[in-house]
Amino acid sequence: MTKIEKSMHHIRLQIENRSLMMGARLPSVRTLAKTLDYSVSTIVEAYDRLVAEKVIESRQGAGYFVSGAQAAFPYHDVARPTDREIDPLWISRQSLIAQPHVLKPGCGWLPEHWMPELSIRKALRKVSKQHTDLLVNYANPWGHQPLRHWIARRIERRGIQIQPDQVLLTESGTQAIDLICRLFLQAGDSVLVDDPCYFNFQSLLNVHQVNIVAVPFQPHGPDLEQFEQIVQQHKPKLYITNAGIHNPTGATLSTHTAYQILKLAEQANLTIVEDDIFADFEVVSAPRYLDLNGFANVIQIGSFSKTVSASIRCGYIAAHPRLIDSLIDLKIATNFGCGLLSAEIIYTALSDSSYRKYLDGLKLHLVDAMSKTIRQLGKLGITPWVLPKGGLFLWCKLPEHIDSAELSKICLAHHVILAPGNAFSQSHSASHFLRFNVAQCNDQRIYQVLEKAMQQLSG
Amino acid sequence: MTKIEKSMHHIRLQIENRSLMMGARLPSVRTLAKTLDYSVSTIVEAYDRLVAEKVIESRQGAGYFVSGAQAAFPYHDVARPTDREIDPLWISRQSLIAQPHVLKPGCGWLPEHWMPELSIRKALRKVSKQHTDLLVNYANPWGHQPLRHWIARRIERRGIQIQPDQVLLTESGTQAIDLICRLFLQAGDSVLVDDPCYFNFQSLLNVHQVNIVAVPFQPHGPDLEQFEQIVQQHKPKLYITNAGIHNPTGATLSTHTAYQILKLAEQANLTIVEDDIFADFEVVSAPRYLDLNGFANVIQIGSFSKTVSASIRCGYIAAHPRLIDSLIDLKIATNFGCGLLSAEIIYTALSDSSYRKYLDGLKLHLVDAMSKTIRQLGKLGITPWVLPKGGLFLWCKLPEHIDSAELSKICLAHHVILAPGNAFSQSHSASHFLRFNVAQCNDQRIYQVLEKAMQQLSG
Repeated sequence: MTKIEKSMHHIRLQIENRSLMMGARLPSVRTLAKTLDYSVSTIVEAYDRLVAEKVIESRQGAGYFVSGAQAAFPYHDVARPTDREIDPLWISRQSLIAQPHVLKPGCGWLPEHWMPELSIRKALRKVSKQHTDLLVNYANPWGHQPLRHWIARRIERRGIQIQPDQVLLTESGTQAIDLICRLFLQAGDSVLVDDPCYFNFQSLLNVHQVNIVAVPFQPHGPDLEQFEQIVQQHKPKLYITNAGIHNPTGATLSTHTAYQILKLAEQANLTIVEDDIFADFEVVSAPRYLDLNGFANVIQIGSFSKTVSASIRCGYIAAHPRLIDSLIDLKIATNFGCGLLSAEIIYTALSDSSYRKYLDGLKLHLVDAMSKTIRQLGKLGITPWVLPKGGLFLWCKLPEHIDSAELSKICLAHHVILAPGNAFSQSHSASHFLRFNVAQCNDQRIYQVLEKAMQQLSG
Repeated sequence: MTKIEKSMHHIRLQIENRSLMMGARLPSVRTLAKTLDYSVSTIVEAYDRLVAEKVIESRQGAGYFVSGAQAAFPYHDVARPTDREIDPLWISRQSLIAQPHVLKPGCGWLPEHWMPELSIRKALRKVSKQHTDLLVNYANPWGHQPLRHWIARRIERRGIQIQPDQVLLTESGTQAIDLICRLFLQAGDSVLVDDPCYFNFQSLLNVHQVNIVAVPFQPHGPDLEQFEQIVQQHKPKLYITNAGIHNPTGATLSTHTAYQILKLAEQANLTIVEDDIFADFEVVSAPRYLDLNGFANVIQIGSFSKTVSASIRCGYIAAHPRLIDSLIDLKIATNFGCGLLSAEIIYTALSDSSYRKYLDGLKLHLVDAMSKTIRQLGKLGITPWVLPKGGLFLWCKLPEHIDSAELSKICLAHHVILAPGNAFSQSHSASHFLRFNVAQCNDQRIYQVLEKAMQQLSG
């Protein structure tokens, strides 16, 4: 590669990994020349060729910009924050495109060798002998019946009355929330989330062009006073949160807080959507909103991506019967049938006797990883905000002078993907926080890279 | 069951199978008493109990109505036509919930024993031995690479330049269109479809709250004059149609029409979305819009539901590179990852040497079924609007005095699900048409039920 080609490659790479987003301004010719230690004329030529290729565009007097889609696309106006670090899609994209050698303490899933691989292989062999209907046909609109019964039974065991037809299978937990948003929301409505919350809630709500209002999340659940105030002021249609283990904080709801929140929600005719995706990580089960009030004003969603397989897409909605019919219409209109086969594989894996044993082992493994990670991070002055009762996540505070977005940038260059706090925070008040996935933290290189990067930012 | 319980059951069943939709008026007490041959007091008691159960509600002076969801749900206002027969979701729902003994000449898919069952069983066994990554991990945001390459090669073979990264996998063909709509459309925009068109296009567009404009579809493609007029008047953002074999008519585009439409679309900055879902049914390949103009203003979508499996969900979008990045953001936000495993199973089945042979056999089978169906329907005075060059569908005209919605109602009561013309027609100008799926028409009972029902309507 010539220096010109290398410069072009450098820019292309940054666009690809979203260091430079669509519409973003490129570094000036002089700056890039200095960074790469090439001559100014090399960079001028590289930029010219990229302009010719329509990868970037030049605007008189303003510099060079990454070419965008047609101005006619409304989505970009509403859903793309310009600051890369706080783009809620940043962590997803970085983690999903990461090469195998990249370390991912910021990602939201287990390492592959922690997953119940054998149960899945066994399930695939079993399913290969199943009757033709399961292999080739559309499911009925509710989706795979035995899996719906399994989910209904899990909910029933918590003392909640439920019919299997109150469970609708979806392609993913995210799709479950998307369908609910489609049913409840119009552009401009207000929706309440936690601050911090799972970053993809924000991305999803941006697509729906709604007003996102965030309530500070405390170690026992949302701040009650502020919740009340927000509900009165903004009249949100939905409150979307996690059931059980909270993402990113790892905190769990207290029964007291759950009850107070439910009362406020009922008064305000606010529906609570609780995402039970981390159900199978719990050592001791935390209260659910559903436990207290049934399906009166609570919808539960979930999926099996975290503890069975992320490769086999399957989620669910459990809701009041009056909602299910409308959700089915929406599901058919926007996605048509349910995946019978994926649901059958998930169901077979869940029913396998080894799955319970796997879960017990997994929980022990996680408790162990949690304490190790706390110890290692502690040496760097990174301390947990709360001690989680289970799950993957550790929400950690950095020393005051370290900005987590800056830190993430430096670490990414050293092949370590972090999860900077503000990606989770609607108010951007978490610039000194990082979310760690303890299952992905068992590699000394993570702490070495972190330490060096922190020194760099301190120096 | 007492007579009261039987009456309640009768109503519940009609609500379930959508003969009575949410908000619909129930038959009067007297009418139902007469229909079921029970006393008026029995029906009064049955209705009272259903009111107590909140299944139905009584409105002073207006009668009884099926209880609806909360008035606050905006979706119902825009997406639920009140006339059951022309509800585009009717056929989907009826076909998807049909019991095995029900005959489905109106449904849109092959009978299960026509599907490549053995390739799928083989694929499942093969996949059960694949590496762990495929079994448990999220895909990269584009989805399963080998399948994307396979799709890109299929497009390349038509003489169109394409990079594999221009192909994005989705959970279904429907989801592919939904993502495109999310990228291009705002509520109130206009979208062009064919009249008639695949009914789910209408359901999907209703969810997006856009203005659906329909252009009459002729045996060689859309009516050119009207297309031009509509484009000028309504300035639609998208034109959504089928590639190759048209649903419901079975007609194919001529190169001449394709060229004229493309010119009009280019002038008007209109993007054409062509759904290539029936690609593998073609005996002789019809022209695509993509063939003529590449990805300049054409997006192709497709899936494998019709010829591999409807149980294994997987679709794709092939588009200009500038669109893919935004579509990926939308996909992550609304559905998160791609299903690696489903794509791997599809890819393995497609790559199986027996798949080509299966397709050859299938096409012969269909040609045979097509001529048989035409002959049988001809005896009843039901005649094809055009002779299809391939595929499943036969768009047929009924004798003038027969209304296809009325006919479908009667036949449904005799366990035969038809596809009444107006479900496909935005202008409701197809009340004397039916769509037949020739692969589902090989049962004499269909013609017997049809004949009797036609006699009833003539009498």
